[in-house]
Amino acid sequence: MADKSFDVVGIGNAIVDIIARCDDGFLSKHDLAKGAMRLIDAEEANRLYSAMGPAVERSGGSVANAIAGLASFGAKCGFIGRVAADQFGGIFRHDIRSLGVAYDTLPASDGAPTARCLILVTPDGERTMNTFLGASVDFQPEDLELELIGAAKIVYLEGYLFDRDAAKAAFREAARAAKEAGAKVALTLSDAFCVDRHRDDFRALVQHGADIVFANEKEITSLYQVNSFEEAADLAMNDCEMAVLTRSEAGSIIVAGGETIEIEAENARVVDLTGAGDLYSAGFLYGLTHGASLRECGRLGSLAAAEAISHIGARPEISLQKLARDNGLLPH
Amino acid sequence: MADKSFDVVGIGNAIVDIIARCDDGFLSKHDLAKGAMRLIDAEEANRLYSAMGPAVERSGGSVANAIAGLASFGAKCGFIGRVAADQFGGIFRHDIRSLGVAYDTLPASDGAPTARCLILVTPDGERTMNTFLGASVDFQPEDLELELIGAAKIVYLEGYLFDRDAAKAAFREAARAAKEAGAKVALTLSDAFCVDRHRDDFRALVQHGADIVFANEKEITSLYQVNSFEEAADLAMNDCEMAVLTRSEAGSIIVAGGETIEIEAENARVVDLTGAGDLYSAGFLYGLTHGASLRECGRLGSLAAAEAISHIGARPEISLQKLARDNGLLPH
Repeated sequence: MADKSFDVVGIGNAIVDIIARCDDGFLSKHDLAKGAMRLIDAEEANRLYSAMGPAVERSGGSVANAIAGLASFGAKCGFIGRVAADQFGGIFRHDIRSLGVAYDTLPASDGAPTARCLILVTPDGERTMNTFLGASVDFQPEDLELELIGAAKIVYLEGYLFDRDAAKAAFREAARAAKEAGAKVALTLSDAFCVDRHRDDFRALVQHGADIVFANEKEITSLYQVNSFEEAADLAMNDCEMAVLTRSEAGSIIVAGGETIEIEAENARVVDLTGAGDLYSAGFLYGLTHGASLRECGRLGSLAAAEAISHIGARPEISLQKLARDNGLLPH
Repeated sequence: MADKSFDVVGIGNAIVDIIARCDDGFLSKHDLAKGAMRLIDAEEANRLYSAMGPAVERSGGSVANAIAGLASFGAKCGFIGRVAADQFGGIFRHDIRSLGVAYDTLPASDGAPTARCLILVTPDGERTMNTFLGASVDFQPEDLELELIGAAKIVYLEGYLFDRDAAKAAFREAARAAKEAGAKVALTLSDAFCVDRHRDDFRALVQHGADIVFANEKEITSLYQVNSFEEAADLAMNDCEMAVLTRSEAGSIIVAGGETIEIEAENARVVDLTGAGDLYSAGFLYGLTHGASLRECGRLGSLAAAEAISHIGARPEISLQKLARDNGLLPH
């Protein structure tokens, strides 16, 4: 991976999270499947927002969160994703750029507003997400910055973008460009319902486009339509170079080169699970681009995930580089 | 105070806070006086925002925070303050309404955007505020909802609004309307520099318009241009019915009817001092409108302030009613 000036370039939804606490009764009343992500239109976004309690706004987006985590570890990163020229777009742009991440996607000056995700956090820390994709919807091959992609060691793709055909086409193009430039392609499956909606396309990308696949238990069993995690892991081993499978408090496993490595979860006080998977992949990819062993990659992932779930909001609130050093996972 | 359907109606700036952590070096580099509030224009707001780290957005505004706190105690409240018809205005409106607060000020459809306050929190928990007043600037007598004011037991005025002449005129009008309707007028001095800029007008309002004055040590000594807190407290006793003077970790004193009551501060882990004074007044005014003794009012204030400083952001993250019950300050 010589001559690569970026460790990881992410392509994903550019979203501002609107986070409020609620009780389980609120989820039932509004027919929301706890722990899942659903897509909503502008009207439903307004309706649900009116019903929600007071909220906090923070930049979000699955792969964007991972990129923010990578930057907090000290990685050199870029991000590609579409916002509108509005105040939420300004928040997203500021937050990611202030971390030193290269982010130059032009904001759309007309059309839908910047994407927002209404996140409801129940007392158990579980998050239920309602996403209005707004300006993110129109992501298409023309938005790809091929030069940035070519300068990355790893290009990290967000499964959520699969909900739009143009974005799907952009993904295939990004994967092609990445391979051509000698970059690895990483993919997160994002959400079991999203996998369910686009199973064939996900399978094709896992088999032919992605080198590294991130998924949780529900996502990987949904991808292969099998009942057990072990079966799914075996199938993933055949399909791609490396599968990194997370199981919440049961830790994670890394399946690569015929080997299976088990990693324990870090202890953490769960406040808000938003971003746990995103930050796990941040730690993992930081390790992978900095010469760590696969076991060390997994431990960096667990550590970053534990930080993310200890507070409201997905992005790290402290320096992950310092946290990793203090935990003996990076040299001082 | 019979026939009053609102406990407290607040009049203040309608602001969205943009909160980021920074070190002391950042304050020096940008010539910022730690702990103070300064007014900035749009250009400086953009410059400083670009230089700041990743941020969190939350509704703010001094008296608006107090009203949010009062609502969290279970009080019936209203708020008057001006936003623009933009996304930040939408955040402000949603957050205060979702607490059950009556808020019907029409958003301005042209002119400056919604006010925002860039808040820098240093590792010691101190906050340094940089406010772009935006749409709040144009607050004027026509924005007063006299019916709402007339229905309040207490009308609570924000000293920060004194920085604009039209708003100052609106304050005098609000105080007059409140008195006419048999409501008490409470005033917060807001900031020592603000007092310094408008000392004569503040003194006149304290002597002739306000029944209850909230101030911290710096503000009250600045108002009377004296060196000691005790001197200032004596002068305040002559000027108004009740002065409530806060001294951070040294607690607070209530000066009323010739008496001086000392209240201890609650123990709290300081994360971010933003909103400490606002939430103190929330607890105090809740007690005052619900038959508590002055000592109980002060203890409710200390309790709410302690909650506010234990997390990033000014507004309460838990139910203050429940907190007060759990601490034996309100009946179960």
